[in-house]
Amino acid sequence: MDLVVIGGGAAGMAAASKAKRVNPSLSVTVIEAGRYVSYAECGIPYYLEGIVASPADLLHYPLEEFTQKRGINVITRTSVNAIDRKNRELILSNGAKTRYDRLIIATGASPKVPDSLSALGIHGIRSLESGEITHQDISNAAVVAIIGDGILGIELASSLVQGGKKVYLVSRHSEILKGFDAKIGAAFREEFKQRVNVLTEASDLEVTGSNGAFVLATRGNKFAVDVVISATGIVPNTKIAIDAGIAADSRGIIITDGHMLTSDPSIYAAGDCASTTNTVTGQPDWHPLAQVSNKMGRVAGSNAAGGSMVFPGSVGTTLVKVFDYEIGFTGLTEEQAKKDGLDAKTIFVKGMSKAGYYPGKQPVFVNMVTENVTGRMLGAQVVSKDGAAWRVNAVAAAIQARLTAEAFFFSDLGYSPPFGPVWDPLIIAADLSMK
Amino acid sequence: MDLVVIGGGAAGMAAASKAKRVNPSLSVTVIEAGRYVSYAECGIPYYLEGIVASPADLLHYPLEEFTQKRGINVITRTSVNAIDRKNRELILSNGAKTRYDRLIIATGASPKVPDSLSALGIHGIRSLESGEITHQDISNAAVVAIIGDGILGIELASSLVQGGKKVYLVSRHSEILKGFDAKIGAAFREEFKQRVNVLTEASDLEVTGSNGAFVLATRGNKFAVDVVISATGIVPNTKIAIDAGIAADSRGIIITDGHMLTSDPSIYAAGDCASTTNTVTGQPDWHPLAQVSNKMGRVAGSNAAGGSMVFPGSVGTTLVKVFDYEIGFTGLTEEQAKKDGLDAKTIFVKGMSKAGYYPGKQPVFVNMVTENVTGRMLGAQVVSKDGAAWRVNAVAAAIQARLTAEAFFFSDLGYSPPFGPVWDPLIIAADLSMK
Repeated sequence: MDLVVIGGGAAGMAAASKAKRVNPSLSVTVIEAGRYVSYAECGIPYYLEGIVASPADLLHYPLEEFTQKRGINVITRTSVNAIDRKNRELILSNGAKTRYDRLIIATGASPKVPDSLSALGIHGIRSLESGEITHQDISNAAVVAIIGDGILGIELASSLVQGGKKVYLVSRHSEILKGFDAKIGAAFREEFKQRVNVLTEASDLEVTGSNGAFVLATRGNKFAVDVVISATGIVPNTKIAIDAGIAADSRGIIITDGHMLTSDPSIYAAGDCASTTNTVTGQPDWHPLAQVSNKMGRVAGSNAAGGSMVFPGSVGTTLVKVFDYEIGFTGLTEEQAKKDGLDAKTIFVKGMSKAGYYPGKQPVFVNMVTENVTGRMLGAQVVSKDGAAWRVNAVAAAIQARLTAEAFFFSDLGYSPPFGPVWDPLIIAADLSMK
Repeated sequence: MDLVVIGGGAAGMAAASKAKRVNPSLSVTVIEAGRYVSYAECGIPYYLEGIVASPADLLHYPLEEFTQKRGINVITRTSVNAIDRKNRELILSNGAKTRYDRLIIATGASPKVPDSLSALGIHGIRSLESGEITHQDISNAAVVAIIGDGILGIELASSLVQGGKKVYLVSRHSEILKGFDAKIGAAFREEFKQRVNVLTEASDLEVTGSNGAFVLATRGNKFAVDVVISATGIVPNTKIAIDAGIAADSRGIIITDGHMLTSDPSIYAAGDCASTTNTVTGQPDWHPLAQVSNKMGRVAGSNAAGGSMVFPGSVGTTLVKVFDYEIGFTGLTEEQAKKDGLDAKTIFVKGMSKAGYYPGKQPVFVNMVTENVTGRMLGAQVVSKDGAAWRVNAVAAAIQARLTAEAFFFSDLGYSPPFGPVWDPLIIAADLSMK
């Protein structure tokens, strides 16, 4: 039996490794377009900042771990041009053909760069190669502009400022980090703007020039910058899947079931190219996140090798460190919940990260979203310089378990003065959600 | 209607406040033996260390918050000598009598000091007054001995060493911090012993002398110390309850139901004097912990005032910071689980607190205890210098929700390099627990 995995990122390598563990006699081949497999793309901002010295540090494992220790064939620098489902063959970029009995598509996602920017040679960051090119681009730059105000945009801005650059962050919106409302976002945004030049409502942005000498024009002002990085979102790499007739949604995300099986019973999909079930809504969703991809890959690999695992879905928990701030969210915002037809409300709490008398305490801002009538927890956002990330994770576990705010209030989170007040901001938020 | 609360600690003041909110026309009186109400006894080690300047900083609220803002009568420096259940009266230490319609017993717990130590004037630490006396005791001391190796003992040792004292910690056991096995405890114990003089297997301990000049003798050695502090556990303050015929267990802990009602339908109990249900075993248990007491108090106060709240039980989540280490546990150890007849196993994982390439990462030691066959999570212990406490809280939420290791593996804990590796030690432990 031949299992072929397209893509050597988190999902692909997790799938290949799991498949080989489940069925060691299986022939497992990974085909990767780039030079690297099993790399930590989430670490690229730190490489650009300079706190990670080399892209080699971002490889989870050397290639030999997979080829020699785990017995996986790995073919790099080779793309798949087409999937011939009738003959169960892949047409490779070097003209060769590869047979498969089972196929796992783990082709990931790519930056969605507006044509007007890519025409100037501006690119996004996703693959390790794109990180290396950007590292080269900015090595002599004093001023860098980032287009896009999402998680990657604010994270990159933080990294580059801390790496010594002057940074412009360009946003189409009236504020950065949409999804965080005025109350929970205020303190963070104020500090962010002290360190990053934020250009808001810049939907009229025009960029001219070339690498080393760009000019941004928006709202009557012009800004000279050395380098421009696009961080305007990502799109799934699913052209070959769609061309082969595999079912995808309107955004091009491959539709999968709980076994990570696609519309073709021989073909699985996992990672940033594949859909998941949002466990809060029960509806298909897209959570292109490293830990979700890893787990999807694990499930796809197990099932493709004859095992039986079910991926129960995900809630989109996202964490990021921006300057000294920890920012995280899980599940739905009130706005998202209402779009999904849920009767939702938000409780905002400003509490402290440690007991009032304990040194080093920081404000903790919490938005907790619950469903009226049932009291079920739907989501939370947390912002703090101390302990926001793992507070979000505690809520994520509760949401996955479909706890109500009342059950979460009574869940026995431990207390000690260095780690929280005796009524933690999360517990206060759960309490107020019950009223 | 008169509601009387005996005890002005966490449970008592939470009960009184909640009762008044549920029924503002209720007359609510709190009778407290000491001078203070609503104080943070968990903060006493930091006061002794010197990072909290004054015991006044450990008061959650000034007395006026309760008497004037919340409309609660507070009587301090007055004990209750007896409960006359037939006449629904309390006999106070000043000879007065107080009627009640509903009574809440929140008398807390006291240090269990061996007679041989208390005969020498050695005491434990629990009330704010005991903290003040100890602060005075140690003010001119260079060398302090702590008897007892539990959470309070190791926390006090850490505080006093960091406050500039030389500290002996005396343990009856072969190692400190029983409940943490050799694997998970090793790194912590090694560092602890570099900073604290640990005397193990000291069940032959003899203490002589008096405050300012004690001598410890154990296993053929003698140690001169200035001050001795007892940290050998606590006992519930339930003499008046038991004398009045209220049902208690063999340890003297008042038996309560989910409404925090005692065997007398007019009398509730809450806090360190009252039993809880261990939500893992479903059996009665004792969790004398601040956050549990607060919630018990809340429930007792609501029900005593005519509301209806159920306390679902607790899992005993305990967190402590000792030197740079965060130490926490929740639910059962394998040993405890087996004593309760559960078919349990432990998975040990040594992972890292951040992504491998991210600066400042620390080892994370995890013991995860699950039930064989069902896979249900029963408990966890976590030790690390980075992020152990809130990792334990994430597990606590999962245990409260009765998640299996598989469900917890798939619960969508967020990932970002500063907060964990992409496979967090908790997730690895859950994964290995599934095998």
